[in-house]
Formats: sequence, C-alpha cells, structure tokens
Amino acid sequence: MTRSDTLQNVNRIALSTADVSSSLRHALQLVEATMRAAVDSDVTTLRDASHHILEAGGKRIRPRLVLLSYAAVGGADMREAANVAAAIELMHTASVVHDDINDHGIVRRGRPSVNAIWGRTFALLTGDYLFTKVYELMAPYGDLNIALAEAAVALVEGETLQASAVKENRFTREVYLDIIGRKTAALFRASGSMGALLAGADRETSETLGAFGYNIGLAFQIVDDILDLTSDTDKIGKTAGIDLAQGKGYAAVERDGDLISAAVGNNSADPMAKIKAKVMQGNYVNEGREQAQMLMHAAIAHLDILPDSDARDELIALARSVVEREF
Amino acid sequence: MTRSDTLQNVNRIALSTADVSSSLRHALQLVEATMRAAVDSDVTTLRDASHHILEAGGKRIRPRLVLLSYAAVGGADMREAANVAAAIELMHTASVVHDDINDHGIVRRGRPSVNAIWGRTFALLTGDYLFTKVYELMAPYGDLNIALAEAAVALVEGETLQASAVKENRFTREVYLDIIGRKTAALFRASGSMGALLAGADRETSETLGAFGYNIGLAFQIVDDILDLTSDTDKIGKTAGIDLAQGKGYAAVERDGDLISAAVGNNSADPMAKIKAKVMQGNYVNEGREQAQMLMHAAIAHLDILPDSDARDELIALARSVVEREF
Repeated sequence: MTRSDTLQNVNRIALSTADVSSSLRHALQLVEATMRAAVDSDVTTLRDASHHILEAGGKRIRPRLVLLSYAAVGGADMREAANVAAAIELMHTASVVHDDINDHGIVRRGRPSVNAIWGRTFALLTGDYLFTKVYELMAPYGDLNIALAEAAVALVEGETLQASAVKENRFTREVYLDIIGRKTAALFRASGSMGALLAGADRETSETLGAFGYNIGLAFQIVDDILDLTSDTDKIGKTAGIDLAQGKGYAAVERDGDLISAAVGNNSADPMAKIKAKVMQGNYVNEGREQAQMLMHAAIAHLDILPDSDARDELIALARSVVEREF
Repeated sequence: MTRSDTLQNVNRIALSTADVSSSLRHALQLVEATMRAAVDSDVTTLRDASHHILEAGGKRIRPRLVLLSYAAVGGADMREAANVAAAIELMHTASVVHDDINDHGIVRRGRPSVNAIWGRTFALLTGDYLFTKVYELMAPYGDLNIALAEAAVALVEGETLQASAVKENRFTREVYLDIIGRKTAALFRASGSMGALLAGADRETSETLGAFGYNIGLAFQIVDDILDLTSDTDKIGKTAGIDLAQGKGYAAVERDGDLISAAVGNNSADPMAKIKAKVMQGNYVNEGREQAQMLMHAAIAHLDILPDSDARDELIALARSVVEREF
C-alpha cells in the first residue's frame, strides 16, 4: 500500500501544521475535565480517592496517542476523541490503583498511593469504580468497545501472568515479552486504533496505528522497567526498585538460564543492593535501551502509510519521547 | 395504563404456558456455557479461579430475572438473552470475589473462596478479569451498556458506602437502604429492564420491569442479611455472621439511635455471640422479614401492566422465592 492510496482513505483534511499543538493542548484539557467529571461521585471516598490519583497527573501518553492518531488520519476536531481518550486513561489509572495494592506501592505519580492513604479496601473499590466509569464513558461508542474490552482483558491477564511468573520463579525473556505485550502494549494498541477509527479511518489504517501503538507500548514498558532500576523514587514518582525487589520487570529476566533474583538470593542482608550491583555489572541496561530503540524505529516505520502532517510528526515525537525519557 | 394498552406494546407472542419452564432451563444452561467459555483464558490462574467460583453454582437469580423479563414482554426465544444474562451474572460474581477479599470471607457458595485458595493478589485480578469479560460480552449490545454501566457504578458505590459506614460507625436505616439500593438492587433493576429491552419492549415497560427487579433486589438483600444472622455457614454456603461481625447488614442498623454493634462493644470475650443474642431478643428479624414481604408485594404489583403469561407467573414465583428462601 502506498501513501497515495492511503490518502484516499483519509476522509477529512488533516489539521494544518500550526493548529496541531494547540489543538492537542486543548483536547488534553478536555480529557482532564472529562475524567474529573466522570468520577464526581456523591460517595465521597470514591470521589476523593479518584481525584487524588487523577490530580497527580501523569504523562497522559495513552490519551495523546488517541488524539494524535485521530488527527493523523485526518480527524478534524480532536475534541471528538476526548471521551475515548479519557476512558483509556481511566482504565490505565484503575490498573495502577490495583497494582499498588498488590505490590504494596506507597508512592505513585509523586504522591502517596491510594492504598497508602485510604487503605486496601477503599483502594480496591476505587480501582473498581474507575473501571466502571470506563465502561460508562464507552457505552455510546458501539464497536470501539470490542477493541477496548480486548485490551482490558489482556491487561488483567498480563498482570496475572506477571504475578504467576514471580511466584513460580520463571521469569524468562519469552514470558517477559508476553507479559508486557498484554499488560502495557495492548492498551497502547487500542489507543492508536481507536483514535483512527473515531476519525473514520478504514480497518487497515486503524490496525496500522494500532501496531504503532503496540510497538511503542512495548518500548515504553522496557524503558519503565529500566528506570525502575536506575532512577530514584523522587524522579519517577513511584516507588523505585519495587519491580526488581519483587523479581519482576526487565532486569529480573532470566539470562543464560540464570535468574538474577535467584542467583543473588532473597535472604542476604540487603538483597536489593546486591541485585542492583549485579544488574549494573552486566549489560542489561544498555541491552534494554537498544531493544526499546529498535521497537521505536519499527513503530515509526508503520507511519509510512500516512500522509505527511503535523499530527504524524507529533506521533513520531511521541514515540521518541517514550524511549528517550529519563522519568 | 391498562393491561390492554400494554398488550399492544408487546411485540411478539408470549411463550405458551407449557414452554416456559423448559425454555428457561435450556436458556440457563446456555448462560452457564457462555460464562464458562468467556473465562477460558490461556492464563491458567484466571481460568482456574474463574471456573472454581462459577462451578460452585449459586442461585442465578439475576439471569433468571433477565430471561423471564424477556419472555414476559413477549420475547420469542430466551436464548437471545443468554449473553446479557451471562454478563450480569459475571458482574455479580466479580463483585463477590472482591467482597471476599475485603471481608476476609473464606467460604463462598459452599466452597473455599478464591482468596482462600489463590490468595489476595490473584483474587483481586480474578475479580478484575471477570469484570473485563462483562465488558467484552456486552460490547455488541449498544444502548444496553448504558443501563449496565450505571448498575456497575452503583454497585461499587454501594460497597464503598458500606465500608465507609462501618468504619465511621454510622449505620443508620437511611444509610442501609441507600447501600442496598446501590450494591444489590441496581443490578436487579438492570436485569429486569435489559431483559425487556432485548425483547423489544418500549421504555415504559422496560422501566416497569426494572422497578420490579429493584424491589425484589431490596427484598433479596434484606433477607440475605437476616440469613447471615440466623442461618449457619453450611446452609447459606458463605461465612455466616460475617456481616454482623463487621458491623454491617440489616441487623447492624441503628435503632432508636442505638447502634447494636456499638452497644455491645467490640472488645468483649465473644462479641459475635453477644450481638446475636441481643439481635434475637429484639424484633429485628421479624421486622426485616415484614419489610421484605412488603417489597415483594410492591414488586408483584408492577407486573399488573403485563398480559397474563406463564413467564409472568414465573416472575411472581421468583419474587416469592427471593423472600421465602431459607438459604
């Protein structure tokens, strides 16, 4: 398929260069307002806990991916995609709140986690609540629900595979890729494909933007796992080292049949320090960064089918920022 | 509105008397098969834990309510409503799995609870998984999603209000009714109204079946709370006395400004025995049963707008069984 073929699939005029960054900014503000309004329950604990985690901000990569995918295939008004972008970010937020329960995470987005403030019971219910709000926001969007439901299932499956792999001490490279494909990349795929579908793109175009999203999702998670290891809690805004301490994440992956966490052992005086030292000695961090780079280039190559536009450039910039970020 | 008006709203011929109970049985079998197939994940823990809780059975009141509401307004083939009935039962099951985490319940439907076998982390993920499967099953059903999403939100809000009321020791009658309206009756309402909508009923008819469901949902929960108090674990298939022990449920409701749990105190040698004794002395159980009876009659009165049919009789029988059950 050539670019000129695809041009015919783009059913509206792409936004002009000057407009995109300001449109994106406005649409993201609408996404924030939509999320806040969605969780404005009369049940004060749900409202307060939801606002707490939403107001902590976050990178909003998934909403950006929805909005830019929409614009890159010719969508005329990014605000049309704001509800769906909000739903996707709420789904991610729900999973984050539940993760922090299971991982005993006490810092999230630079704030105390929901479970740290409200306790496990209310954190569980807040995560459930955010998920029901995804469902409610998405109700008018017909077929898009199939794509997002699939991502939701994958997300929970990925988290479960991860918990099983840690428990059974079989964190191989293959298992790691299966896990991050489901728990992270599936929602990135849905973001890209749903943005495109909302703008009226055909199936091939929307799947291509889904593939773009999937690849940057994988890259994002690898970088996230590296940052968990190399950065500190202040900088990344969540409990650093938590993945490795729990025998998961990129650095915990088995290499040459040697599970790092098993090799170091869990009952040494300071297992974390020893694991970190061992990981830093090896080539793990550079290797991970290289894989993420590779995935980023693969992602960007998918965009060849799109016409030139400022939105397309912004998608490329988004892919780069995912890999090059330091937090 | 008279019955003959409503007859015109019923767009298909109601099932004949002889057919209904056999159709119901077959449709319920399809609901079971649909639920089992939906949770057939390649992630073994999710599959095993989901099958464990589904195979434990349960009363399947909500699916019955969907199927009978469908038939009572003239739906021709109950199997048409099986996917939606399965989705509603999965949503209820998801909430049950999460409840058992928060309440430390170890018996459910006569089996060890999911958290008792797989632990809290996997129980949390299994509940999430079941909910994502609701979302997936419902994706093709357009507008019905609005009704079910509303019920899902209410369910989580009700659970949260309950946890807050217990924590803050303000379990008044008003709070109790607000809680059970959301955590139980909202899903019963969705069951009735969605069954009717699937059969092509108009809005008034579907809302009436929703109101029928809402009332029997309230009655169901009051009876459930009484059984928690008066029955034993073997009979009701879940940890008996757990609600009262946790300061919630019907018997924990404040009367004459006197919170029972507060009056007895939590630090006596066997607080449960003392609370039970105090509750049994009073008129609490009879009073609750009377309220449930009243709600049942109110529910049945809603059915006046429907034409006579075996399905309508079955709905009445369902309402009675909810109140008269001993487990």
